[in-house]
Amino acid sequence: MPKLLSQLVYPADVPKYRRTTYNNNWCLLTKGTGRLLLLAGDQRMEHLNNDFWGSNIDPADNNPEHLFQIAAHAPIGALAVHYGLASRYGHSYRHLNYVIKLNGKTNLINDDPDSHLLATIDQTIELSKEAGFRLVGVGYSIYPGSRYEPRMLAEASQIIIEAHDNGLPVILWIYPRGGKVKNEDDVSLIAGAAGLAVSLGADFVKVRAPRPLTVKNIQRVVEAAGLTKVIFAGGAATAYDKLLRDISLEIKGGSAGVAIGRNIHQQSLKEASRRLQILSALIYEHKTLSQVAKSVNRGRSQHNSKEQ
Amino acid sequence: MPKLLSQLVYPADVPKYRRTTYNNNWCLLTKGTGRLLLLAGDQRMEHLNNDFWGSNIDPADNNPEHLFQIAAHAPIGALAVHYGLASRYGHSYRHLNYVIKLNGKTNLINDDPDSHLLATIDQTIELSKEAGFRLVGVGYSIYPGSRYEPRMLAEASQIIIEAHDNGLPVILWIYPRGGKVKNEDDVSLIAGAAGLAVSLGADFVKVRAPRPLTVKNIQRVVEAAGLTKVIFAGGAATAYDKLLRDISLEIKGGSAGVAIGRNIHQQSLKEASRRLQILSALIYEHKTLSQVAKSVNRGRSQHNSKEQ
Amino acid sequence: MPKLLSQLVYPADVPKYRRTTYNNNWCLLTKGTGRLLLLAGDQRMEHLNNDFWGSNIDPADNNPEHLFQIAAHAPIGALAVHYGLASRYGHSYRHLNYVIKLNGKTNLINDDPDSHLLATIDQTIELSKEAGFRLVGVGYSIYPGSRYEPRMLAEASQIIIEAHDNGLPVILWIYPRGGKVKNEDDVSLIAGAAGLAVSLGADFVKVRAPRPLTVKNIQRVVEAAGLTKVIFAGGAATAYDKLLRDISLEIKGGSAGVAIGRNIHQQSLKEASRRLQILSALIYEHKTLSQVAKSVNRGRSQHNSKEQ
Amino acid sequence: MPKLLSQLVYPADVPKYRRTTYNNNWCLLTKGTGRLLLLAGDQRMEHLNNDFWGSNIDPADNNPEHLFQIAAHAPIGALAVHYGLASRYGHSYRHLNYVIKLNGKTNLINDDPDSHLLATIDQTIELSKEAGFRLVGVGYSIYPGSRYEPRMLAEASQIIIEAHDNGLPVILWIYPRGGKVKNEDDVSLIAGAAGLAVSLGADFVKVRAPRPLTVKNIQRVVEAAGLTKVIFAGGAATAYDKLLRDISLEIKGGSAGVAIGRNIHQQSLKEASRRLQILSALIYEHKTLSQVAKSVNRGRSQHNSKEQ
Amino acid sequence: MPKLLSQLVYPADVPKYRRTTYNNNWCLLTKGTGRLLLLAGDQRMEHLNNDFWGSNIDPADNNPEHLFQIAAHAPIGALAVHYGLASRYGHSYRHLNYVIKLNGKTNLINDDPDSHLLATIDQTIELSKEAGFRLVGVGYSIYPGSRYEPRMLAEASQIIIEAHDNGLPVILWIYPRGGKVKNEDDVSLIAGAAGLAVSLGADFVKVRAPRPLTVKNIQRVVEAAGLTKVIFAGGAATAYDKLLRDISLEIKGGSAGVAIGRNIHQQSLKEASRRLQILSALIYEHKTLSQVAKSVNRGRSQHNSKEQ
Repeated sequence: MPKLLSQLVYPADVPKYRRTTYNNNWCLLTKGTGRLLLLAGDQRMEHLNNDFWGSNIDPADNNPEHLFQIAAHAPIGALAVHYGLASRYGHSYRHLNYVIKLNGKTNLINDDPDSHLLATIDQTIELSKEAGFRLVGVGYSIYPGSRYEPRMLAEASQIIIEAHDNGLPVILWIYPRGGKVKNEDDVSLIAGAAGLAVSLGADFVKVRAPRPLTVKNIQRVVEAAGLTKVIFAGGAATAYDKLLRDISLEIKGGSAGVAIGRNIHQQSLKEASRRLQILSALIYEHKTLSQVAKSVNRGRSQHNSKEQ
Repeated sequence: MPKLLSQLVYPADVPKYRRTTYNNNWCLLTKGTGRLLLLAGDQRMEHLNNDFWGSNIDPADNNPEHLFQIAAHAPIGALAVHYGLASRYGHSYRHLNYVIKLNGKTNLINDDPDSHLLATIDQTIELSKEAGFRLVGVGYSIYPGSRYEPRMLAEASQIIIEAHDNGLPVILWIYPRGGKVKNEDDVSLIAGAAGLAVSLGADFVKVRAPRPLTVKNIQRVVEAAGLTKVIFAGGAATAYDKLLRDISLEIKGGSAGVAIGRNIHQQSLKEASRRLQILSALIYEHKTLSQVAKSVNRGRSQHNSKEQ
Repeated sequence: MPKLLSQLVYPADVPKYRRTTYNNNWCLLTKGTGRLLLLAGDQRMEHLNNDFWGSNIDPADNNPEHLFQIAAHAPIGALAVHYGLASRYGHSYRHLNYVIKLNGKTNLINDDPDSHLLATIDQTIELSKEAGFRLVGVGYSIYPGSRYEPRMLAEASQIIIEAHDNGLPVILWIYPRGGKVKNEDDVSLIAGAAGLAVSLGADFVKVRAPRPLTVKNIQRVVEAAGLTKVIFAGGAATAYDKLLRDISLEIKGGSAGVAIGRNIHQQSLKEASRRLQILSALIYEHKTLSQVAKSVNRGRSQHNSKEQ
Repeated sequence: MPKLLSQLVYPADVPKYRRTTYNNNWCLLTKGTGRLLLLAGDQRMEHLNNDFWGSNIDPADNNPEHLFQIAAHAPIGALAVHYGLASRYGHSYRHLNYVIKLNGKTNLINDDPDSHLLATIDQTIELSKEAGFRLVGVGYSIYPGSRYEPRMLAEASQIIIEAHDNGLPVILWIYPRGGKVKNEDDVSLIAGAAGLAVSLGADFVKVRAPRPLTVKNIQRVVEAAGLTKVIFAGGAATAYDKLLRDISLEIKGGSAGVAIGRNIHQQSLKEASRRLQILSALIYEHKTLSQVAKSVNRGRSQHNSKEQ
Repeated sequence: MPKLLSQLVYPADVPKYRRTTYNNNWCLLTKGTGRLLLLAGDQRMEHLNNDFWGSNIDPADNNPEHLFQIAAHAPIGALAVHYGLASRYGHSYRHLNYVIKLNGKTNLINDDPDSHLLATIDQTIELSKEAGFRLVGVGYSIYPGSRYEPRMLAEASQIIIEAHDNGLPVILWIYPRGGKVKNEDDVSLIAGAAGLAVSLGADFVKVRAPRPLTVKNIQRVVEAAGLTKVIFAGGAATAYDKLLRDISLEIKGGSAGVAIGRNIHQQSLKEASRRLQILSALIYEHKTLSQVAKSVNRGRSQHNSKEQ
């Protein structure tokens, strides 16, 4: 069997004089481990108020600042938000690492999904300088299967080229939807999304976890992504210990980590921080599920008592 | 409970050398109170002649200058009009504060709503200099749910970035419509629009008032907007004392004020001025409804006698 | 009642160093009266051959030069043609005043009407210099109600800003069509079009005459246009004395004049010239219908004898 | 009756320092006669392989070079091909006059026809210099009635302005299709296309011949084009003597010539050359049909003997 | 019969100072033979995971690097991949010749196919310099019959002009689909695609092999492409000896070679290398099928034993 590339390989379109910048951003995102725990805050635009208010949601979550408070109290790799939210809160929370999600849309559209660039990379870099926060990467969403897919693929490709030219890693959110897509959880579809990400030259790709969730399916997805790292979506709010078992299995299959939103920000600041500490232990410290079990159990009992 | 940001926070994309300009515009708009009474004159394009002629409408309203006459006689924060109206009347009414509404459309289209940029920010600033009036902000409308939403979100984002770069606050008009929108008065939908506004980095957002109109619903919307200030639409022409009760309640819930059009310009110059003085007392002077009651009653009796 | 603006007010986006140019063009168009008799020659593109050949049409009309011959023999304010026609005939008829109609389409499209810019203002000014003719204004058509309305509104707004920057008055052709439009002759709709024109900052707006044609309806439309002057379309070819009565009534209601095409160019050169002289007397010389009656009768008897 | 323009009139947007260039190109195209015999080779893109292979088609026609061979052996005004074909064969056949057809599409589309610019005028001029051939004009196709008509009208107008600025005559191909078009052979429709061409400022317009084909109908079309010269399409392959009678009649009606493709290139090199010599005699030498009859008869007998 | 061009003719839009570059690239692609064996790796985007995982596919194929490993072990003309894949693996496999496929889409779209430019030619050249690999050409896909055809034709034309300006040969992938296309294997349709390629000025065109696959049909396609070289698609995975017979017949008909993907990369590294060596012998060394038969048989027996 041939020897395959396994170490960090710089994308060739990161110019040599930007490699230090790229390497620094990569190390901040991954804490030097090649893995990533990303706290996702883009749903305030993507899902509107539905994710932030309701019977099982902590009232604090209705305020956009809740997310920044959580990020300030947890060992995440970076906080992913849109430009506007960063322009409003970024200078008050300037000690965080930011990934700016460059495009966005709401969930109200009946039409095929399309998502346009809200801010350019130059504007995003300028914002980080004015606000004084650390910009460690940028994000972009693609919806393969939509009739706007070709436009989004082209825009994503240009974003990746320009980000690399500035030493910034890129995380693609890829959600096949509509068109010929029948089952969004299908492993073949998700492995295809992973292959699309590497064909575009992305550094990370965030995809749904395939169902059934098996180590073999995870491996297939991770391998299809080649040198692009795969992180999985935390998905809809579920029982947290179930989620931890899933993430643990994903890591076993080769996943580089997780992008998580609702399962965190819908909690109180304290519980959210605790959950992120467990995730950080799993992802960045290579702890096993049993090693973090005590924390999990303590959290569950607290959570249950709150729900009563 | 964590300490949240509450004071005026400069958007980080207002460069430091523009902060004085931004602060001056903010103070003119809000009279230093953080609140806003906006007289809206964009309906001459948006609603065509329907709002300006009819059995309950003062004949003076048919002439576009009526609006400027009212603005010249009332303690408003600013007058919101399109570029063209300002190019025609702005130098003759140069002592007013202007918010230029940058995009627009008519109400004749069957298709999903779309609204394009009519004038750039540079052109708008140039106009204000040539005409000699005070430009204190710009406005832009978004229709989430329309299949043109992605284009409008991107254009709005660029407008906000460019306006802030020039020290100008931005007011977003956000009207979810079409697509998956079922009830335009739903509090969850309107709180979502507020969250969208802050995700885009807006300074103010104008939304419909949620129904049922309760302090709790207002609070939910205002909180979801975070550091973006919420002003509510005056809505269709209704009994004025009913409207005052609504606005009073909205302010109690945390609203920063109101954008009002038809309830003002459809009146005679005298009655319109009186109404705006009451609103100014409620919004800028923090008067209560009972404190302004005498004026209200006097106005109602006058109004009734006119209708006989 | 408040004092309203009534004198010529320069649009604020005409820079001070262009006011002389703007004033000169305005005076050429209106012969210093504030009124306008516009000979419209854009139908060769808009209506193709239908308006230029047929049983009641003088055979000379089939040749595009007929229009220029008429314009050369009549006291009109300006001749409105597309760029291409002006590039072909303008230097041979360089003593005429020209309004270049900047956009255009044919009448063959089933789709919602859309009309794109054919030549820029810079190209149009350059043409007038090369050809040596007087460019006194530019024109642009909008079709509110079409799904392409937002694009056309934005393009029209940019045209007005750029034309004013060059000292050129702008005439908007506004034809609400499709969408929610039920009756194109409705006074409310036409008054709305007039309000749209002033919201865009136009100098003149050409609209259909409202039906029923009463002084009150004309006044409503004219007042809704504010500082934008209203001229009415001559409409389809009709009995000429009927048309003169209509125009006389429109002027009584405050109209600034007429844009006329088919009723003129479908006639012989001699009859067309005679008709334009009568219109000029009504519009520019403030003559009454009875004062011009002798000419009208003479023309009618001649016309009848031709038809026998 | 007024005196009309009849001599060559320079389009006013040909700058004075380009008039010599324009005049030279005009003289090469028309051999100083004001008439044009254009050999059309754009069908290899427009009609794909259908026009170049079949039972009545000479096998040589399948090779794109056949067209250039014919052009090299015949007294045509110019050869019209797309940029790509000229980039491949133009330097090997550099003694020909070329008209580059700037836009193009295939016949496979079900949608309304649209045809985009394939090469700019600057690129085309650059190509002619690199290849060393004579560029004597450019061509552009418009499909009025298509929902893409407005885009094509605008692009055509810009092409004409830019071509004239470079001293290049423009030939418009105008094919009304779809939309409200019922009969593509209708004289009123074709006269409308001619009027559209002059409204855009074209130098030549290629249209279908009207049916019934009478001198009166031809005159109507030619007159409606004003200073734009009309050439008719050769149409589908038909009996050649029938075609010659048609062309002779068209010239009698005032046509400036013909654009011919299939009736020529589907023949052997020898027969194609002979046919073009007859056409050249009719068009450029003002010969009558009877004067060229001997050649025609000789050709027909040869052709018949080949078909046996 | 006239003498036709047969030697390599430089496209006229390759400037004289770029001819050495163009010639070098051409020689690398064709090994000086005018023929081309292209290993296609664009399906990871175009076909997603379907082509890389399954019961008859070697497990190694799921990893994108498998393709580069194969290319490193085989005498191909070039490897065709998208920009992103080259940015990830190109510097680690810098001794290969690369053709960068400039546009792309997935197979999930129900809408008419459209494929946008992912990276410009300048970006692609810059990448090759940074990564240190040999860029010997670029590729672009067109889908005639799609309603996006006109946009793709125009983009392809611009790509060819710009590539030639940089001394790069262009390979067009042309797949007529949708619209009036009934049989994608029809020889007339494929000959039309070949004619389209030369009309756009392409250096190579990749089309489907016509069915029935006869020398005559191949000759018709090759001849219709004129000076553009024709290579045929390897098509879906089939029995390899059947494929070799097809390719041998295509070469007999004048084909310049083959673009092959699935039949290679779905094999193990060893078998893939062996297959490419056979193809190289057929294409570049002008060997006959019988001359390479021993290798074929050895391969088949190995392959069969693997499948048991």
